[in-house]
Amino acid sequence: MGGPEIERLIALLSKLPGLGPRSARRATLALLKQPQSKMLPLAKALEQAAEHVKVCSSCGNLDSNDPCVICTNPHRHQDQICVVETVGDLWALEKTGIFKGQYQVLGGALSPLSGIGPEDLNLTPLLDRLQRQEVTEIILALGATVDGVTTMHWLYDQLLPWNVKITRVSQGIPMGGSLEVLDEGTLTAALTTRRSV
Amino acid sequence: MGGPEIERLIALLSKLPGLGPRSARRATLALLKQPQSKMLPLAKALEQAAEHVKVCSSCGNLDSNDPCVICTNPHRHQDQICVVETVGDLWALEKTGIFKGQYQVLGGALSPLSGIGPEDLNLTPLLDRLQRQEVTEIILALGATVDGVTTMHWLYDQLLPWNVKITRVSQGIPMGGSLEVLDEGTLTAALTTRRSV
Repeated sequence: MGGPEIERLIALLSKLPGLGPRSARRATLALLKQPQSKMLPLAKALEQAAEHVKVCSSCGNLDSNDPCVICTNPHRHQDQICVVETVGDLWALEKTGIFKGQYQVLGGALSPLSGIGPEDLNLTPLLDRLQRQEVTEIILALGATVDGVTTMHWLYDQLLPWNVKITRVSQGIPMGGSLEVLDEGTLTAALTTRRSV
Repeated sequence: MGGPEIERLIALLSKLPGLGPRSARRATLALLKQPQSKMLPLAKALEQAAEHVKVCSSCGNLDSNDPCVICTNPHRHQDQICVVETVGDLWALEKTGIFKGQYQVLGGALSPLSGIGPEDLNLTPLLDRLQRQEVTEIILALGATVDGVTTMHWLYDQLLPWNVKITRVSQGIPMGGSLEVLDEGTLTAALTTRRSV
């Protein structure tokens, strides 16, 4: 359509999650309209991120520093650890600003069907922390999926010997959600774990 | 969340059409998982596109070459010119592979409300072509919007003196579309321009 450079850019963009061939073409067009103010800054940002961003050896977060900005923040509680499946989950929780403790990113969930076993999850740093410092609560913030629940039960078994308070995030009606359109599983969970007003 | 490099990348990606802050975070995470095989190639592709891609002085398409690959293709009919609003429209039509003529990209549509007048549209190359070579048909492939229809009528008036066949793309039921969910305007157009089977 417009030479190899355009085709290559569309091909690479269309592989990003949330973008398909059609939206990659739209994005490419928007970029091509402003090569100096949009394309080159994006190219630079990608290069710099590729160069500087690393995995935090302590919690598994992605950051320019290792240990990451969350692990080294002295204002955050060191005795609360929230276990999440992915860095995306960590970022989503951080957007709320409600949690002031530490994280542990597992890097996935147990999934017998996909061949992901306990040895594939990044649990060692959490066990190291339990040995090294005082931890009062471990919050399991895993997805409400079959794999997430499997992982939660397995983690519970692993953490039980440490005699630490283990909690899990609630399940129920999402904010703005109408009961009418929700599935039976969510409604059952919302009903059975109901609280007084 | 993860240092200035990540924040900057998310900010730039979220400005692309079709991406918001949330999908930009997802895309950034996907890229960060494979810095060598995904981020650096994308950075390189952006740089090369910014450097090589230019506007075709003949039709207004974007291409590594000027005149573009469509204008210089000897196998395409030189006497059919399809007028479109944007390069995105041109690419969408090219995907169908059904049209084998030339294009003219106007760069927009007449829009009194947005202050886009005839002087903002790229019509001169088309008039030059009409003067220079034999043109048997001009196809107006403009959007079925108020601005698109306004532009079509204005173009018709401009082209009338040239005594050339002027056609327009059909309006009607989109492929896979159910009549039940379509608006009255589309249904009216589909009915009034009906053809024998």
